Amino acid sequence: MHTTRIQVRLAETDQNGVVYYSQYFVYFDVAKTRFLRRMGLDPIGLGEPGQKLLAAEAGCTFHAPARFEDLVNVSSWVRKTGNSSVVFDFEVSRGETLLAEGYLVNVLVGGDGKPVRLPQDARLRLIRYVKKQS
Amino acid sequence: MHTTRIQVRLAETDQNGVVYYSQYFVYFDVAKTRFLRRMGLDPIGLGEPGQKLLAAEAGCTFHAPARFEDLVNVSSWVRKTGNSSVVFDFEVSRGETLLAEGYLVNVLVGGDGKPVRLPQDARLRLIRYVKKQS
Amino acid sequence: MHTTRIQVRLAETDQNGVVYYSQYFVYFDVAKTRFLRRMGLDPIGLGEPGQKLLAAEAGCTFHAPARFEDLVNVSSWVRKTGNSSVVFDFEVSRGETLLAEGYLVNVLVGGDGKPVRLPQDARLRLIRYVKKQS
Amino acid sequence: MHTTRIQVRLAETDQNGVVYYSQYFVYFDVAKTRFLRRMGLDPIGLGEPGQKLLAAEAGCTFHAPARFEDLVNVSSWVRKTGNSSVVFDFEVSRGETLLAEGYLVNVLVGGDGKPVRLPQDARLRLIRYVKKQS
Repeated sequence: MHTTRIQVRLAETDQNGVVYYSQYFVYFDVAKTRFLRRMGLDPIGLGEPGQKLLAAEAGCTFHAPARFEDLVNVSSWVRKTGNSSVVFDFEVSRGETLLAEGYLVNVLVGGDGKPVRLPQDARLRLIRYVKKQS
Repeated sequence: MHTTRIQVRLAETDQNGVVYYSQYFVYFDVAKTRFLRRMGLDPIGLGEPGQKLLAAEAGCTFHAPARFEDLVNVSSWVRKTGNSSVVFDFEVSRGETLLAEGYLVNVLVGGDGKPVRLPQDARLRLIRYVKKQS
Repeated sequence: MHTTRIQVRLAETDQNGVVYYSQYFVYFDVAKTRFLRRMGLDPIGLGEPGQKLLAAEAGCTFHAPARFEDLVNVSSWVRKTGNSSVVFDFEVSRGETLLAEGYLVNVLVGGDGKPVRLPQDARLRLIRYVKKQS
Repeated sequence: MHTTRIQVRLAETDQNGVVYYSQYFVYFDVAKTRFLRRMGLDPIGLGEPGQKLLAAEAGCTFHAPARFEDLVNVSSWVRKTGNSSVVFDFEVSRGETLLAEGYLVNVLVGGDGKPVRLPQDARLRLIRYVKKQS
C-alpha cells in the first residue's frame, strides 16, 4: 500500500461547490505515478523504451464530496497483474472519512499499440504490493 | 437515444498523444447535459430549486484512443431510474470505430445532501429514453 | 476575423459559480485551432513536419463572468506576424456582452526547440486575417 | 516572497510532450492560495463572508517547457494593492531554470459582483509581502 497526499485546487471544484467527479481519476493517476516510482518503476512504460501504459478501464464510487483546500489521502494497491495488464485499486479519504473508491486497469502496449507482456522485473515489483485478502 | 458531437481539444490530450482518460468523463457529462435539455429537464437539479444531481458512481472501458481534432459522437441512453437515482449509458465513437463505453449514476440530493425522490414529471421524461433491450 | 461558438461545460466552472479563469486560455486555443483550419493551415506546426507552434506569451482581461451552459462566441484575429511568431487576439462574448479579451503569442519551433521562420505560404495566409486598424 | 512546490501531472501535459500553457495559470492560483494562507488570509474572499476574489487580468510569458513529473517551484509576490484589488507576481522555475513569469490581478467583489474595498487588516498583511524594488 502506498499513500499520496493531495490538496484540492480551486480549478478542480465546480459550481456545486465540490470536486468535479472526473477529477478523482486525475487523483488516481497522480497516486499511481508516485506508487510506481516508489516501486522503482517508470510510470510511462514501466521502463521499457517505446512502451506505454494506457488506460483500459476505470471506475469510481463516490461516497462524500471533497472541497476546496481539503487535504485528501489517496491510498493505492495493486489488485492483480495479468499478462500485459495491471489493476490498481484506490481509496480517497479525508481524515477518517472515505470519499471515494475506484480502480484503474492499465495495459502495457508497444509502439504499434498492441499489448505486450509485462517485463518480469516489473511484475515482481508489482506483485509485492498486491493487496492481501482479509 | 441522443447523440452529442464533440471535437477533441489540444488541452484534452496528454504526452502519449491521445485524449487523457479522465476526459471521457467530461464528455459523458457534456452529453448528459444536452440529453437532459433535449428531454426538457434542467441538468443541475432536474428543475427542482435547491436540488442537485451528484455523481454516485461512474465507469468507462477504453477501446481505442481519440486524438487531437477528432470529431467524436457521444451517444447517451437512460439505463434505468431508481427512487432518487438515474443511470446513464454512453458510447463514444469516431465514425464506425467505438472508442469508449461508460456509465454514470446520478443521485438527486436536497439542500442537506440527502437523496430525494425524483420528481414524477422528470421520471416520466427520463423513462421515455430508457434503452430497449435487444 | 473568425468566430467559434463554445458552450460552457460544468467541468469548466468553479465553486464561485463561474467559469474558472484559466479556462479562457483553453477557449482561445480552441478558437485558434479552428481559425487556422479555416485558413487552410495545420494547427500543430502550420503544416511543416516536426515543427510545432508553442505558446510564448498569453494574457487575458476579464470583464464579466461566463456561467454553465452559456453559449459564448470567441472571435479571433491575427494581430501581426514576426519572423517566427504569430500574435492572435481574441474576444469572448455572450450575446452583446463582452466577457473577456486576450491574446496569444505563438512561436514556431523546429525539432530542436529553436525558433524557425514561418513558411512563406503560411505567412501569406495569416496576413490576410490581420485586424484592420480603425 | 513565498514558494510553492508542484509536481507536474500527466493530465497537465499535452501531445507536444510539455505542460499545456493554460495550466500555468492553475499553478499561479495554487501558489496564491497557499501564499494567502501563509499570510493568515482566506483565499476565497480574504475572510469577508459573501465576498470573493475574482480574476480581473492575468498574463504569462513562457520561457522553457515543463514536463511530466518535473518538480517546479512557483514563487509568489504581492506587486501592489489598490482600493479593491491585489496584483500578484509569479515565477515558475525548475532548479536554476526559469520556466515562466506571470501575474494575476484579483478584485474583491461583494455579493452583487461590485468591487468593494479591501479590508484594512488584509491590506496590512498583503503589503508586508510587496516585492522590494532592486
